[in-house]
Amino acid sequence: MRTGTTPAASEIKVAAVQSDPQVGIENKKSNVESTLQLIAEAAREGARLIVLPELASTGYSFDTREEAYLHAEPVPNGPTLQAWIEAARQHDTYVVAGILEQEGVALYDTAVLIGPEGFIGKYRKTHLWNREKLLFTPGTEYPVFDTKIGRIGLLICWDIWFPEVARILAAQGADIICSTNNWVWTPPPLFDDAGNCMASYLTMSASHVNTIPIVAADRVGEERGGKFLGCSLITGTNGWPIGGIADAEDKTIIYADLDLTASRAAMIWNDLNDLARDRRTDLYDPLLGFNGTPLVR
Amino acid sequence: MRTGTTPAASEIKVAAVQSDPQVGIENKKSNVESTLQLIAEAAREGARLIVLPELASTGYSFDTREEAYLHAEPVPNGPTLQAWIEAARQHDTYVVAGILEQEGVALYDTAVLIGPEGFIGKYRKTHLWNREKLLFTPGTEYPVFDTKIGRIGLLICWDIWFPEVARILAAQGADIICSTNNWVWTPPPLFDDAGNCMASYLTMSASHVNTIPIVAADRVGEERGGKFLGCSLITGTNGWPIGGIADAEDKTIIYADLDLTASRAAMIWNDLNDLARDRRTDLYDPLLGFNGTPLVR
Repeated sequence: MRTGTTPAASEIKVAAVQSDPQVGIENKKSNVESTLQLIAEAAREGARLIVLPELASTGYSFDTREEAYLHAEPVPNGPTLQAWIEAARQHDTYVVAGILEQEGVALYDTAVLIGPEGFIGKYRKTHLWNREKLLFTPGTEYPVFDTKIGRIGLLICWDIWFPEVARILAAQGADIICSTNNWVWTPPPLFDDAGNCMASYLTMSASHVNTIPIVAADRVGEERGGKFLGCSLITGTNGWPIGGIADAEDKTIIYADLDLTASRAAMIWNDLNDLARDRRTDLYDPLLGFNGTPLVR
Repeated sequence: MRTGTTPAASEIKVAAVQSDPQVGIENKKSNVESTLQLIAEAAREGARLIVLPELASTGYSFDTREEAYLHAEPVPNGPTLQAWIEAARQHDTYVVAGILEQEGVALYDTAVLIGPEGFIGKYRKTHLWNREKLLFTPGTEYPVFDTKIGRIGLLICWDIWFPEVARILAAQGADIICSTNNWVWTPPPLFDDAGNCMASYLTMSASHVNTIPIVAADRVGEERGGKFLGCSLITGTNGWPIGGIADAEDKTIIYADLDLTASRAAMIWNDLNDLARDRRTDLYDPLLGFNGTPLVR
């Protein structure tokens, strides 16, 4: 078996922020301030890619569309995103965070990618969970962003239940997936004896079968009767969590040192198995995946 | 959230046999006898669906094609399969097991499904691992078999690294997946602190996102310098292992009581999320999955 002797090309520290924003327009200012403090804290610890949860600046559980509109902002010109852009510039770091986006009358559950150079791009959640279907418009694209530290793909929460999403991002040459989450419920039990939720294992599996690190930031706390599951994790190209999976309750930041381009070599496991080549695109997915989109890894 | 009040329609005990066959034509007779004893033991415990590992009657690590031919048999007319058919009839049980199949000059890494009524069908491994590519011909179909206890899909070992396979089986209305395995290696570490291997988590994830039970029988022991990983498991429609994951070393049989048709109701999680309907077939897999093959669940 191969031992992975390719020298690291892009080693950096990454961070997953497990925070506890609170819904309600009266809390928005403190929510945004909290994100800025957490970005500063992670950057002080040396993180150059910092991932915050889904809807990190607003909280999640909007009662009505009317309430959701109060929280929404245009991307990238809204005040929250402008504050994040300034923070990324000031701390010389990349930031991924969830935000409630408004364009025209449409609301999107969006993840944004920001770097020291400013706003890079956004991903609008394509799989909507439960009442999100009553509030938001689903996205229609799976962009992968080329940056100085590597190629970054984004996904949001319920997306990880659809193995197609990580496949599509990997197929487009993503070096890492930043996963922003508000995990809330699965058919019981919510946790196993180790205290991990099923989404932890879905994340590990998506990472492993695509040989791509995933930085999954989930939130904790409660909102209007709904409880979030924590369990943030950062996986290596082998899919295993680096330094363990976060607790279900704690506000915390977890870190890992990653080579953001390691995935380009990691998919060749031995002289005969390349996880891209081994896909049977003669039998499935002829229009997607490694066969149908540019294979740049 | 839903509580799953649909009454069980097909409750039975299922078994995953974690055995230790040994390669070498001098061992074939004792390997087959061992499978018959294990089938009898599981049937005595009340199992009506018994899953054995990949290549359960021959061992795995053939040195050459010539040696592999010595172990191979036609399906269903070879002596091993005839013995399994007689065992399934005698014990009034369904059996899934891996066998080395020869048809013409081609060798296949095959899983067979047998019931009290005789031979039902076979699946030829579509994703070949490492030196299997030098010995075997890959399969080209993902059959799902209708039986008196429910619809049964089969997969073999390396297949589970390709989330497409479980998707395709679920899309065709499978109620349960029987997974026959000789798990050998992943990028290190092989096990986590809980003693589980990555294939355990891939199995749980495939089960969970397709809301379908998986009976995964792996083998233990060593052959010609290669070590097998054990860690057999049986998941419910929620993806969690029932009664825990087997040890990495022990010869054992694990059991679970399952409703083999529970998956037909389990994919509806709430008033707004149906895991089949939620697939974005406008964005991916338009030719496969729930959109492209008969949706009979």
